[in-house]
Amino acid sequence: MTVKGLELSMIKVGIIGGTGYTGVELLRLLAAHPQADLRVITSRGEAGKQVSDLFPNLRGHVKLAFTQPDIKALAGCDVVFSATPNGVAMMHARELLKAGVKFIDLAADFRLKDPAVWEKWYGTPHACPELLAEAVYGLPEVNREKIKKARLIANPGCYPTAVQLGFLPLLEAGLVDAVHLIADAKSGISGAGRKAEAHTLFSEASDNFKAYSVPGHRHWPEIRQGLDAVAGEPVGLTFVPHLTPMIRGIHATLYARLVKTKVDLQALYEKRYANEPFVDVMPPGSHPETRSVRISNVCRIAVHQPQGEDTVVVLSVIDNLVKGAAGQAVQNMNILFGLDERTGLQQAGVLP
Amino acid sequence: MTVKGLELSMIKVGIIGGTGYTGVELLRLLAAHPQADLRVITSRGEAGKQVSDLFPNLRGHVKLAFTQPDIKALAGCDVVFSATPNGVAMMHARELLKAGVKFIDLAADFRLKDPAVWEKWYGTPHACPELLAEAVYGLPEVNREKIKKARLIANPGCYPTAVQLGFLPLLEAGLVDAVHLIADAKSGISGAGRKAEAHTLFSEASDNFKAYSVPGHRHWPEIRQGLDAVAGEPVGLTFVPHLTPMIRGIHATLYARLVKTKVDLQALYEKRYANEPFVDVMPPGSHPETRSVRISNVCRIAVHQPQGEDTVVVLSVIDNLVKGAAGQAVQNMNILFGLDERTGLQQAGVLP
Amino acid sequence: MTVKGLELSMIKVGIIGGTGYTGVELLRLLAAHPQADLRVITSRGEAGKQVSDLFPNLRGHVKLAFTQPDIKALAGCDVVFSATPNGVAMMHARELLKAGVKFIDLAADFRLKDPAVWEKWYGTPHACPELLAEAVYGLPEVNREKIKKARLIANPGCYPTAVQLGFLPLLEAGLVDAVHLIADAKSGISGAGRKAEAHTLFSEASDNFKAYSVPGHRHWPEIRQGLDAVAGEPVGLTFVPHLTPMIRGIHATLYARLVKTKVDLQALYEKRYANEPFVDVMPPGSHPETRSVRISNVCRIAVHQPQGEDTVVVLSVIDNLVKGAAGQAVQNMNILFGLDERTGLQQAGVLP
Amino acid sequence: MTVKGLELSMIKVGIIGGTGYTGVELLRLLAAHPQADLRVITSRGEAGKQVSDLFPNLRGHVKLAFTQPDIKALAGCDVVFSATPNGVAMMHARELLKAGVKFIDLAADFRLKDPAVWEKWYGTPHACPELLAEAVYGLPEVNREKIKKARLIANPGCYPTAVQLGFLPLLEAGLVDAVHLIADAKSGISGAGRKAEAHTLFSEASDNFKAYSVPGHRHWPEIRQGLDAVAGEPVGLTFVPHLTPMIRGIHATLYARLVKTKVDLQALYEKRYANEPFVDVMPPGSHPETRSVRISNVCRIAVHQPQGEDTVVVLSVIDNLVKGAAGQAVQNMNILFGLDERTGLQQAGVLP
Repeated sequence: MTVKGLELSMIKVGIIGGTGYTGVELLRLLAAHPQADLRVITSRGEAGKQVSDLFPNLRGHVKLAFTQPDIKALAGCDVVFSATPNGVAMMHARELLKAGVKFIDLAADFRLKDPAVWEKWYGTPHACPELLAEAVYGLPEVNREKIKKARLIANPGCYPTAVQLGFLPLLEAGLVDAVHLIADAKSGISGAGRKAEAHTLFSEASDNFKAYSVPGHRHWPEIRQGLDAVAGEPVGLTFVPHLTPMIRGIHATLYARLVKTKVDLQALYEKRYANEPFVDVMPPGSHPETRSVRISNVCRIAVHQPQGEDTVVVLSVIDNLVKGAAGQAVQNMNILFGLDERTGLQQAGVLP
Repeated sequence: MTVKGLELSMIKVGIIGGTGYTGVELLRLLAAHPQADLRVITSRGEAGKQVSDLFPNLRGHVKLAFTQPDIKALAGCDVVFSATPNGVAMMHARELLKAGVKFIDLAADFRLKDPAVWEKWYGTPHACPELLAEAVYGLPEVNREKIKKARLIANPGCYPTAVQLGFLPLLEAGLVDAVHLIADAKSGISGAGRKAEAHTLFSEASDNFKAYSVPGHRHWPEIRQGLDAVAGEPVGLTFVPHLTPMIRGIHATLYARLVKTKVDLQALYEKRYANEPFVDVMPPGSHPETRSVRISNVCRIAVHQPQGEDTVVVLSVIDNLVKGAAGQAVQNMNILFGLDERTGLQQAGVLP
Repeated sequence: MTVKGLELSMIKVGIIGGTGYTGVELLRLLAAHPQADLRVITSRGEAGKQVSDLFPNLRGHVKLAFTQPDIKALAGCDVVFSATPNGVAMMHARELLKAGVKFIDLAADFRLKDPAVWEKWYGTPHACPELLAEAVYGLPEVNREKIKKARLIANPGCYPTAVQLGFLPLLEAGLVDAVHLIADAKSGISGAGRKAEAHTLFSEASDNFKAYSVPGHRHWPEIRQGLDAVAGEPVGLTFVPHLTPMIRGIHATLYARLVKTKVDLQALYEKRYANEPFVDVMPPGSHPETRSVRISNVCRIAVHQPQGEDTVVVLSVIDNLVKGAAGQAVQNMNILFGLDERTGLQQAGVLP
Repeated sequence: MTVKGLELSMIKVGIIGGTGYTGVELLRLLAAHPQADLRVITSRGEAGKQVSDLFPNLRGHVKLAFTQPDIKALAGCDVVFSATPNGVAMMHARELLKAGVKFIDLAADFRLKDPAVWEKWYGTPHACPELLAEAVYGLPEVNREKIKKARLIANPGCYPTAVQLGFLPLLEAGLVDAVHLIADAKSGISGAGRKAEAHTLFSEASDNFKAYSVPGHRHWPEIRQGLDAVAGEPVGLTFVPHLTPMIRGIHATLYARLVKTKVDLQALYEKRYANEPFVDVMPPGSHPETRSVRISNVCRIAVHQPQGEDTVVVLSVIDNLVKGAAGQAVQNMNILFGLDERTGLQQAGVLP
């Protein structure tokens, strides 16, 4: 982006999919992004429909209509976001990369390094395993330097973002028994997407709380892969996701056994995230609320050591659709194109 | 604002109160407003506390602390917003106006022109009745020209904004029986404020729906005063407010008897609001949703004539804390200071 | 039910469908009903599955499994409830009636007397128009005597129950302009059923409020048919339904113009419903809450005449799944079989 | 209860307090209890008011009015429930026991055996420490035999009920490392009571999720005391409570390290609770939902061993106001008076 004119410096953006919740959030963020020029958005199911007919909140903000998938139109963009169900992005990646387009996948297609693990958890062989090594896992707090030079970004999952940012300082410092980590995570219902399913109906999901996928959730291998890398050894992780009756937000409550109990955990966290624009370590004794980050790209973290015993408790909250999806994708775009990482992502949380 | 330097062109802003929901929303909007320089915020109850300790969503966005009410500090501002309970602003208005400060009251103190009506509905004599004539009712869609020259703005109530914008075109055109208007309005719970009261507890207000104040609500005289002026005669209005279990949003369903049934109502509404930046007339057959304007300053309206009969039904939605309070107050500030009316108010609604 | 032994006096009950919300509510009520012996429940989609696997709240209460539709098994029952989508019950009615079974349809198949009106609003020709005249509209407060002798009961819709009970006394007394009735009704989301649809997802329907079907809703002809009969002339009705983010409950706010304004409306309502076990007229000035009737078969009503003007406002609340569906169906069964009408229906509302 | 006539066999019941959520739930259950004769309910704040004016759901079910506290009237009862804030029951216990009344306290006054621990966590010296040894902790699944002979019952807290029932089989069997138990518990907002406080307002608590009291919660010593007794040694427990935006329900997610991994945990749980009327062990692989026990006295439990590793995960759900408060209190009354333990407590959960 070394060009001079404002017009020329705009990033030409395409979106594949975009009819789900990460899609509409991406549209909302990009529509307000001063450097993004939204050029094309494709959807097989909604082609021909105005974006703002599907999402009336965007009336006056997005003038595009959905079009049929069209690799040529997408190839004319500087960056393409894929906001499709799992297994779609891997069908387009090769061609778009060949055309010189930066590609950011908000689904899971490029998150797992091992194609066998992908196949086990997602049920299909991987369509372009040769790209897995190249793909950069887009968690800026870990991989910022790699992201700068990447062509292909695997945008992290929502649970993995909250859980990894919460465990990171402990594992980097080697302070906990990494073989018995526990992540008890609670997600708002939007995490289940916009697909019509009985269990996410209002009358099923409201005034209700439940765990799900305790025997095994797709984010488990993703989190472990990330924590393995940080710990430098295979970690052990019990991961229990729950659905809580709110629209947005993830609250991860993390438990680990300290191998040293006389450490200033507060200082550890504050130092680790001192220069991170989107991680906010709360004062000692805090309990971050998910609503404090609603529509914001911030991850808010508090660290506790109840009764001074050897169990550390970390509370980590994000908006699953922002830092857990679309916001982090835009953050990755900013890094890719050399912009200030915060561009277009400075909205405060909305309360109440 | 004819000064040249950016620094000098900033509007110095003070807030009285600001610990309630209109307050935190005002803070959120002003913190992101490119021309507003938030200088002072006073609160008797929270003096000494960081704003961001009370409202953690504003961590990193508002660095001020609440201070004791201090008329001198406020007098140094270009504009002061009063976001206090009813009956407080009228205690400060005289002094601040004398100091040359523009004063925008988000409470009801200056909305009613007749001090006797004020006293009847609010239970206390008015403290500065001589200012009532001068105060401009800050509904830009009706009073834009007056607002430009005002010193004192009475920012409209939430219900009155949604109801008046909905009825306006019909009354201006003299199309309906103005003596039998019906406004069935539904408000999210934030309309009741941040004060701890039993009936707005989560366990009381959620999974529940009720009407309230059917015998008489304080917004009834305010709406009637506004509609009287438009109709040019005293209107008759039945106003029934309801509480609906959502945080933000007002949905007004308006009914009136048409005196002419062969009118193109859609064209009437589109024409009336063609140049209004914050009123969006939906296509025929639409049902605007409150969430489409969540955190946005837009009023979205649809007009229906079921079965072609003589009853017109208007659906009007706003975010009660934005177009119904803080957003409209900022819109008024923009008009007062000659800025583009949309400055700092262009956030799209958030969905989901 | 003149037999002597307790065993023999049990009513043998069958259910067609029963996998939706009216179904599970019917199961819950019948499982606790001292005279009901639940024998068979059929469902094409869930045949073979234990009822309590689909609805874990019924573990230990209902031991039946769903079976394939089997007219023979159903014909062995004393009464069959049909809790299916519209258009299914009319396929079974003839055969079951022939077998001597009492038939209670919770869907709309037998509610409209005119098959042409049925076809217009439900989109298919009626399968047994010859039964429409015989079918009794099961609103006990109007048709109790006819219900006693009926073979075929059309259980009223949820909106129609709340709206008709609210307007009844006014129309019977000829007190209002019957040509301009307005019913502004708000329903919890369970009214839309258990079918997976995007607009009733938690993330779409919560923290949101909207009107729908303003141009025309299927309950409009049903309500009008009922009110016509009471008024003795064709009434005019504007009916606007809304979705409100709660699971259960309907709140109907009714407006009518009084032709006489000096009437004791409170006394009128109290007298009309004095002997009705399931209509509770609240004291003057009340605002009934939907939660006060949650899981209860009661319709709670308050009547207002704001400012003594000529518009009467009636507030009428029910639980849409109980008095608006399954509870009223059981009430009809009780009447059909000569039981105390309140049998099995005496649960108090649940609050909070 | 060896008397013969039905009239004489009714249990005369008094309630102290009863204006909070456990109170209204107790009233609802006792009003429908075939052996309970509700005689007196006292409330300093609401004396003179009809119970059904405060709680309209009880119109037609409870005809009593609140009266001023009156030890004589209470002394005439067979059993008195205290549904007051902590610290009130201990003021009345001595006198009522002396009068021969059975006393069931729904607050915390008699739960902790050590008065020093009481004082530490509840902030006041205990008013009748001599009764602490006699008081029986009313968890029937542990103390049924003692309850039968008790005069004074300490009804367990909501979290302690869900957590203890979940851990019980593991600790009794000595299968886990008892020094590192983790209980991650989520409660509906009604657990915070009916007192007006800002943080439980709808607009604060809905669409939000947060942990609270991580440094130390009053239920922590209560749970530990119970688990110590079962384990036969002091246990170590990390307890993190959270508020989730629903009215009723507790979901406890429990984690423990297995000392033997080749145990049939499913069989262990099923056997332990085989004869318990109010504990329902779900089939393997289940995820109990809080709504499945809404208004029911059942605790539903599932046990998991993810990936066959050495961490056991137990999911335990209750309705905090029923099995976690009023229902368990009635269960204790049934046991005290030799009734079938299930009397008046057989309502199925309500879904949706």
